[in-house]
Amino acid sequence: MSKLTDLPKRILIGRALRSDRLGETLLPKRIALPVFASDPLSSVAYAPGEVLIVLSIAGLSAYHFSPWIALAVVILMFTVVASYRQNVRAYPSGGGDYEVATTNLGPRAGLTVASALLVDYVLTVAVSVSAGVENLGSAISFVVEHKTLCAIGAIVLLALMNLRGVRESGKLFAIPTYLFVAGVFLMLLWGGFRGLVLGDTMHAPTSGFDIKPEHPGLAGFALVFLLLRAFSSGCAALTGVEAISNGVPAFRKPKSRNAATTLALMGLLAVTMFCGIIALAMATGVKMAENPATDLIRDGVPVGDGYTQHPVIAQVAEAVFGPGSFLFVLLAVATALVLFLAANTAYNGFPLLGSILAQDRYLPRQLHTRGDRLAFSNGIVLLAGAAILLVWIYGADTTRLIQLYIVGVFVSFTLSQTGMVRHWNRLLAGERDRARRRHMIRSRAINAFGAFFTGLVLVVVLATKFSHGAWVALLGMVIFYGTMTAIRKHYDRVAEEIAADDASPDDSVRPSRVHAIVLVSKLHRPTLRALAYARLIRADQLEALSISVDQAETKALREEWERRGINVPLKILDSPYREVTRPVIEYVKGLRRQSPRDVISVYIPEYVVGHWYEHLLHNQSALRLKGRLLFTPGVMVTSVPYQLQSSEAAKQRARRRAEWSAPGSVRRGPVERRQKEPSRKG
Amino acid sequence: MSKLTDLPKRILIGRALRSDRLGETLLPKRIALPVFASDPLSSVAYAPGEVLIVLSIAGLSAYHFSPWIALAVVILMFTVVASYRQNVRAYPSGGGDYEVATTNLGPRAGLTVASALLVDYVLTVAVSVSAGVENLGSAISFVVEHKTLCAIGAIVLLALMNLRGVRESGKLFAIPTYLFVAGVFLMLLWGGFRGLVLGDTMHAPTSGFDIKPEHPGLAGFALVFLLLRAFSSGCAALTGVEAISNGVPAFRKPKSRNAATTLALMGLLAVTMFCGIIALAMATGVKMAENPATDLIRDGVPVGDGYTQHPVIAQVAEAVFGPGSFLFVLLAVATALVLFLAANTAYNGFPLLGSILAQDRYLPRQLHTRGDRLAFSNGIVLLAGAAILLVWIYGADTTRLIQLYIVGVFVSFTLSQTGMVRHWNRLLAGERDRARRRHMIRSRAINAFGAFFTGLVLVVVLATKFSHGAWVALLGMVIFYGTMTAIRKHYDRVAEEIAADDASPDDSVRPSRVHAIVLVSKLHRPTLRALAYARLIRADQLEALSISVDQAETKALREEWERRGINVPLKILDSPYREVTRPVIEYVKGLRRQSPRDVISVYIPEYVVGHWYEHLLHNQSALRLKGRLLFTPGVMVTSVPYQLQSSEAAKQRARRRAEWSAPGSVRRGPVERRQKEPSRKG
Repeated sequence: MSKLTDLPKRILIGRALRSDRLGETLLPKRIALPVFASDPLSSVAYAPGEVLIVLSIAGLSAYHFSPWIALAVVILMFTVVASYRQNVRAYPSGGGDYEVATTNLGPRAGLTVASALLVDYVLTVAVSVSAGVENLGSAISFVVEHKTLCAIGAIVLLALMNLRGVRESGKLFAIPTYLFVAGVFLMLLWGGFRGLVLGDTMHAPTSGFDIKPEHPGLAGFALVFLLLRAFSSGCAALTGVEAISNGVPAFRKPKSRNAATTLALMGLLAVTMFCGIIALAMATGVKMAENPATDLIRDGVPVGDGYTQHPVIAQVAEAVFGPGSFLFVLLAVATALVLFLAANTAYNGFPLLGSILAQDRYLPRQLHTRGDRLAFSNGIVLLAGAAILLVWIYGADTTRLIQLYIVGVFVSFTLSQTGMVRHWNRLLAGERDRARRRHMIRSRAINAFGAFFTGLVLVVVLATKFSHGAWVALLGMVIFYGTMTAIRKHYDRVAEEIAADDASPDDSVRPSRVHAIVLVSKLHRPTLRALAYARLIRADQLEALSISVDQAETKALREEWERRGINVPLKILDSPYREVTRPVIEYVKGLRRQSPRDVISVYIPEYVVGHWYEHLLHNQSALRLKGRLLFTPGVMVTSVPYQLQSSEAAKQRARRRAEWSAPGSVRRGPVERRQKEPSRKG
Repeated sequence: MSKLTDLPKRILIGRALRSDRLGETLLPKRIALPVFASDPLSSVAYAPGEVLIVLSIAGLSAYHFSPWIALAVVILMFTVVASYRQNVRAYPSGGGDYEVATTNLGPRAGLTVASALLVDYVLTVAVSVSAGVENLGSAISFVVEHKTLCAIGAIVLLALMNLRGVRESGKLFAIPTYLFVAGVFLMLLWGGFRGLVLGDTMHAPTSGFDIKPEHPGLAGFALVFLLLRAFSSGCAALTGVEAISNGVPAFRKPKSRNAATTLALMGLLAVTMFCGIIALAMATGVKMAENPATDLIRDGVPVGDGYTQHPVIAQVAEAVFGPGSFLFVLLAVATALVLFLAANTAYNGFPLLGSILAQDRYLPRQLHTRGDRLAFSNGIVLLAGAAILLVWIYGADTTRLIQLYIVGVFVSFTLSQTGMVRHWNRLLAGERDRARRRHMIRSRAINAFGAFFTGLVLVVVLATKFSHGAWVALLGMVIFYGTMTAIRKHYDRVAEEIAADDASPDDSVRPSRVHAIVLVSKLHRPTLRALAYARLIRADQLEALSISVDQAETKALREEWERRGINVPLKILDSPYREVTRPVIEYVKGLRRQSPRDVISVYIPEYVVGHWYEHLLHNQSALRLKGRLLFTPGVMVTSVPYQLQSSEAAKQRARRRAEWSAPGSVRRGPVERRQKEPSRKG
């Protein structure tokens, strides 16, 4: 049975891996870069297009603003990278923005950051997968024709892979990421060479199109607002930069320095690719519109519903490498792969953040265990479910999903940088060494500028995108924040209630005697075992209790009891309605009333079976009785398990489950490191 | 909190009633009749129409066969009633067909009857509610325009009422049933008076219509087949006759005799109404067609999709009382009410049959408890779900649903009557008294004729309706049969496995010592209580065990332990991955390996909370640990509950739940009666 049902599961979820086989190796920079950079680098696959789409609202003439917007994004990228280089030096423990905000700005700010990041993980999955499907669709038309379906399929596939607990390796990340980076640079270089040296004129497939502006002749404040909106969309290129600050422990020594270098390298790569793609898009005459069917004009008429607007990167590649060429297809596939990889990072980050939040009791405590399969599974299923919902609602349309994105990242950026300013202020107050002080003041200036600039961008993003969808992201944040606050409050209330009083070390009435009761339905092995165990306990009083629901059976039980000569008194209670729970509860309550200082110890023989459906057939009365007994004060309930043969199956299932390895372990680093870090700094 | 959430629930589900407030009064015949007869009497609201619809396939000329079909139904009804009068005399315990078949024909026949009845309960709900909606729709057009929706709404409403545990009273059944019977008889008498005495010609709304036969000029075997099909549809009038045999204990003394008289009265009423309605339908020129839109011809053209075909009883009432008249509306409402009441009987019967099957271990044992709320809830939800599915698939169309109906009833009739023949044979073998023998031989003849006739009808029903939908009902029966057989096999296998061996009264190695372990996470009241209780137990060895997931917390625990001077050794296990379960399991296994004759007793402090969502926040690690420990041999697990303040809410909820009264109690009779009956006769 178990063999048969295991086969499809093993195919889908895979053979579990032992967690102690986890690679405890640290990452060199050349591997760390792709591990952490797939998210920010992959966003150059859609960010340039989103900038052009927003500009197209004001018509083709607005396209000449694109270099300026690219410049603004570059400045912002440098600011953010410079800021986070300070973070990784100051907080090498891998706590990330949540830790920085909590330590320096208090738990509310920390919780805000956490909520923002949780929402952002969901959007990373939705946006990256949608963009991946669109990029893949530029080479394989089937994919783009069934966009929503393919996107949901990819999300489910990623979820299954992560539920499986894939054995991660740096190579897994390195190959597609380097392939993508190499492909883009090859495209930029070859395109530049053809255009500047050979003097070729390259034509994107949309170069002959015209754009019907939705708001022609936009000027003044309206134009500024539109440019700001285009800039906000371009800021999508910055998502994921903060990920490295969670992963410092995974780097080789000197950890902080290597992390900072990798961060700088990543920023440099990202801006080069971002600007290069925009430049080539201008040179090859790429046209993008928000509503391509009506606003893209070919030969004087709108292109209509049949037209598929391909991503900028695909159009540029087509112009540079030629339509359908090997390099074009390769780049499309590499782009899609790196985007799916970016989505995968969210699958790693979401449950990890959950476990850190659980440590601070903002989420159920059991999520705290590192790599606990159940916690990870719940997190992965929740993340995939939310992402599927978004993809389904927004039809896997990157342009519409991007409106919700970024809000979370910039909330997190701003609070983290503000926290860093406080961090330096605190350190400066206690530091006397001049060289160190100078260094700190410099760092503080960088973080202060970072906080200011990212805060400004946050305001811009909120102002320009609120009604376009950012409110959804904010609503998500509020829901996460509210839930986590409520959970924390509950834990605090309970902790107060159960705190041990110093004056009276024990609880209320001190118990004096134990009255043990063994529940008996029939005289079979489980009952005999329960009786044997209960007898070992040497309670002050021991009796067997049976509920009579059938007079013939009760008579048989009594006879068997005497025949076997069991020297435990057998008490039988009548139950006209064939109920089991109520007579027992009332009997126990009666005993407690007679002698309130007695503790009642109830022994329940329990069947251990291997399958959930078998469980439905056994123990149900016992379970319900147990549930009620727990509410009766002065009672303890002991299960005496009897393992049926079928329980072997469940045992083996549990063993396999224990051998599972949690996803995201490569970027988290070895476990000993994280152990040393105290749970809360505040 | 509990007050607020209770309000909507109380409105929907109602305030629970104490089960000891159940009317223990026995039913006089005038109340017993409506209690048991709503199902068979209500079927005259649709059975005549179904006969006409089948006949219409051969064209209007085939209508003249309708009196002959009515005659056949009448003979069948008398046969069945006469047969069941023997049943109620021979088996006054209320076990019904299941008991008769199991006792006389063996468990397989019994299980077949049970499967058939379970399927039939589902169809009773689906058919009665659909017919009720159609009848109500003849007066209120909104209802028939939203037929499926209204039918599903009615099913859900009935389910809620039954989940609520309505306090039943005979009056509840008596008023609509007598109203309906009175209405129909008034219609028959007034119609007869107008037609025969006043010489009025009454016109049904369809009297001027013509019918386009689907198979014109049907003759020979095909015609016979069609007539048999019409007869099968008319047999719907017989469903529910067997219900009285389950309810004998609810009658006043002499129970069997009163039940038999009520049965005869019910049969007489049913056939009179059935024949009267068919006669009036002929007299007023009612036309019914299977596909009214195309086959009903008005002024030479089909009536089209906009036409609603009203039930025969409504058309006759319109002709006799006049369209829209008070009596017409009253009868429509009474008909709908009595049909909903008929559906309600299935809600009572389904879980009751389930509890009898659970007693014989064909269903999970916990369903055995009489009036157990959980068992009833599961049964009601399953029944309503299946009925909704059918109503939804078949668009609440009585004509299509009726094709699935009856199969179950006639399987049950045939097996029950065959069983009765065996019963008399057995009794006759041991009986010497001549008068009694003569009586038995007479009864046997009646039952033998009943078995033959109902068996014949079963064959006819299967032959004529199999491809029209009866296969669905058969499939349902097979599924029920298979599931119940599998459950019984499982129980038998387990019973064999756990049977106590006579040679060695105890299990394998006799345990000698107890090693008690108290699990400790922090030193709070729940832990202190668990320590206090465990100390009372006087185990051979007692230690406290804590898993170190955070070094700072562990240090604090150790200090607190010493400060309080707790004289129990504290053992601390390291867990680098912050796991709790695995280190404990491995420690316990190690102890068992060292001394295999020790029993390990693990004490787990457990938090008792009031709400399910609070439960998610606590005890999860404990629960999982407990789940794993159960698979470890030689271990017993003791929960030491600590009742948090919020647990009060759950306690009160449990109390309210205990005060619930099960539906269907009126027809089941008082509990003492059923207790005396042995569970199985075989």
